[in-house]
Amino acid sequence: MKIIVLGAGLVGGPMAADLSKDDGFEVTIVDCNQKRLDEISRLYPTLNIMQKDLSAPGTLESVISNFDLVLNALPGFMGFSVLSRVVKAGKNIVDISFFPEDPFDLDELARNNGITAVVDCGVAPGLSNMLVGYATRQLDETREVKIYVGGLPEVRSWPYEYQAGFSPIDVIAEYTRPAKLVDNGRMVVRPALSEPELLDFSEIGTLEAFNTDGLRTLIRTIKALDMKEKTLRYPGHREKMAVLRESGFFSNEEHEIQGRRIRPLELTAQLLFPLWQMKEGDRDLTVMRVEVKGHKNGMARCFRYDLLDRYDAMTGIHSMARTTGYTAAAVVRLLADGAYRQVGITPPEFLGRFEGGLDFVRRCLEERGIRYHECIESPGGRKD
Amino acid sequence: MKIIVLGAGLVGGPMAADLSKDDGFEVTIVDCNQKRLDEISRLYPTLNIMQKDLSAPGTLESVISNFDLVLNALPGFMGFSVLSRVVKAGKNIVDISFFPEDPFDLDELARNNGITAVVDCGVAPGLSNMLVGYATRQLDETREVKIYVGGLPEVRSWPYEYQAGFSPIDVIAEYTRPAKLVDNGRMVVRPALSEPELLDFSEIGTLEAFNTDGLRTLIRTIKALDMKEKTLRYPGHREKMAVLRESGFFSNEEHEIQGRRIRPLELTAQLLFPLWQMKEGDRDLTVMRVEVKGHKNGMARCFRYDLLDRYDAMTGIHSMARTTGYTAAAVVRLLADGAYRQVGITPPEFLGRFEGGLDFVRRCLEERGIRYHECIESPGGRKD
Repeated sequence: MKIIVLGAGLVGGPMAADLSKDDGFEVTIVDCNQKRLDEISRLYPTLNIMQKDLSAPGTLESVISNFDLVLNALPGFMGFSVLSRVVKAGKNIVDISFFPEDPFDLDELARNNGITAVVDCGVAPGLSNMLVGYATRQLDETREVKIYVGGLPEVRSWPYEYQAGFSPIDVIAEYTRPAKLVDNGRMVVRPALSEPELLDFSEIGTLEAFNTDGLRTLIRTIKALDMKEKTLRYPGHREKMAVLRESGFFSNEEHEIQGRRIRPLELTAQLLFPLWQMKEGDRDLTVMRVEVKGHKNGMARCFRYDLLDRYDAMTGIHSMARTTGYTAAAVVRLLADGAYRQVGITPPEFLGRFEGGLDFVRRCLEERGIRYHECIESPGGRKD
Repeated sequence: MKIIVLGAGLVGGPMAADLSKDDGFEVTIVDCNQKRLDEISRLYPTLNIMQKDLSAPGTLESVISNFDLVLNALPGFMGFSVLSRVVKAGKNIVDISFFPEDPFDLDELARNNGITAVVDCGVAPGLSNMLVGYATRQLDETREVKIYVGGLPEVRSWPYEYQAGFSPIDVIAEYTRPAKLVDNGRMVVRPALSEPELLDFSEIGTLEAFNTDGLRTLIRTIKALDMKEKTLRYPGHREKMAVLRESGFFSNEEHEIQGRRIRPLELTAQLLFPLWQMKEGDRDLTVMRVEVKGHKNGMARCFRYDLLDRYDAMTGIHSMARTTGYTAAAVVRLLADGAYRQVGITPPEFLGRFEGGLDFVRRCLEERGIRYHECIESPGGRKD
């Protein structure tokens, strides 16, 4: 099977390289940056590289025409447009571009073209959705879904104790976009950074969780009384972000400073970039907890999943790239396997509901050292 | 005696009005802002007002020529130049412009012209210096001088719990300019905001103190083994300022943002202005503690002064204006009284050393409801 990976970023490279080790796959990675492609070539000699500017008209269609499956690892701002063109071209696709648009807008087109488009297919959204899909399928009724997730640096440096593999602009967007969540059966909107709580994690210690807009497709696909997604950071990071936001430093509105018009957000992103930048060799970790509560045959039941993954010092691959890229790669294998054939837009919770889907992904992740711990509690009482 | 007050700001108005109540004084206040002068006129009908732009060449000299004493309440950036022109013109002056330059550069000129120029004559610098001058004069040797001072809002509003009667630029300057202090007999320089400590104050609670560059003339005039000045704020304010500073938001260097060059400090001051602005009716308070330790006749002795002053709801006068303006007004009375005749530059510690000087100022302040508590301890042991 011929696979093309769009985008040779921090995740694209290791993900493509992982797939290229499989016997049945021939993997090509395409990017506009030749320097980055040369680096990828040096690191992963089994990969084919292709230098193309995918934003030029018609280029995308001509590039993917010879491939059986597309893996979209481009930045979010161009993600949806690329996805829709791939769907239109009739190619199966696994997408980790995390675009802000609603993927179900492409559902009809995907069904008509008979293709499968798995979207939001990283760790969270991604694996988190699969776990929610799996757990809710074991219940007659779901009372509560909680997702906590964060990518963190191992070394905590004042003041932010945070690093990102992508632009501060994208992180700040998570801190400003209002969070949609489900409260008592209704969708409600709460400010980002709101409702902070402290949670303890084994090996890591206490982290602070706060509302972010991360439920995405789950709001549509999962019926639950209460459902929320929160981002995890080291305690204190949240308040610093709230101070900057409430002072206006995240504002995208133009201010006039001595006759020059500037957007505070642009200055802030420029100032924070060197402080937040995750560089080669910086050790990161991924922490995720998913809790699903409900009842089955009148009995209360709670599913709890805990994942902790760390930077791989042997390969120099960041945990962010491991957890995101290897989940997407596992789903590529699931599609290639031919077991999952549902056409249309597939958010990862559909794979979790699909018999054997989560097991398949779990095995792939475990082979790469990514393990999550599952705990199912049945207190034995009747639902309250 | 004819007195002219330069500058009709938050302090200038109430200070001029206070002096104008004295039988022997005829007080005029001058400012470039007619609107502000009209307001002053309405509030304080006993005052003469004069609208002049003092930055125009020759205007200052012609304005002050008919007066016996000048009170300089102009902003710091023009303070030193105005002071030097007043000294040159041979007029006695009391200065609360708090300019950054060294006032002793004008000492020779002031002596030659036979005039007295009292500088830094507010609450701190000002009253704090008088207390240090008074206490050190009671000692054979001074071991330690500590000054803690802060102007604070009564209502603590997240995130900064701070308000200022002047531009954020001036406050931020205190948070960036390195602090000169005396450590073990030598002058040393420490970063602003450094060495935070928590202190308890009666009626107020716990405040946080940190190094700022406030010793000024005391470094030259007082011989002590250890001497420091710290600013007081509600706990937490300091760290937010440190985060902004270390992230680059206080930088005065130009950054290029999408082709436009801007100084982060200018944007920051613009964003913080509405959050920090002390408006009419906002209740503020002034907290000051001065500690002087040393020995007299081989006995250890400690002088401690605590001042707490609040916004005056009857008159609507802010505590900042009360403590600063009424101290300067007291010193004007001391000079008018003819008791203090030393020519040259007089920092307030000279008035504290002067027999009866502090008592005079203390009485004036007490008549206006500003009281400080004095505590002198002599443990009775020999100096260690």
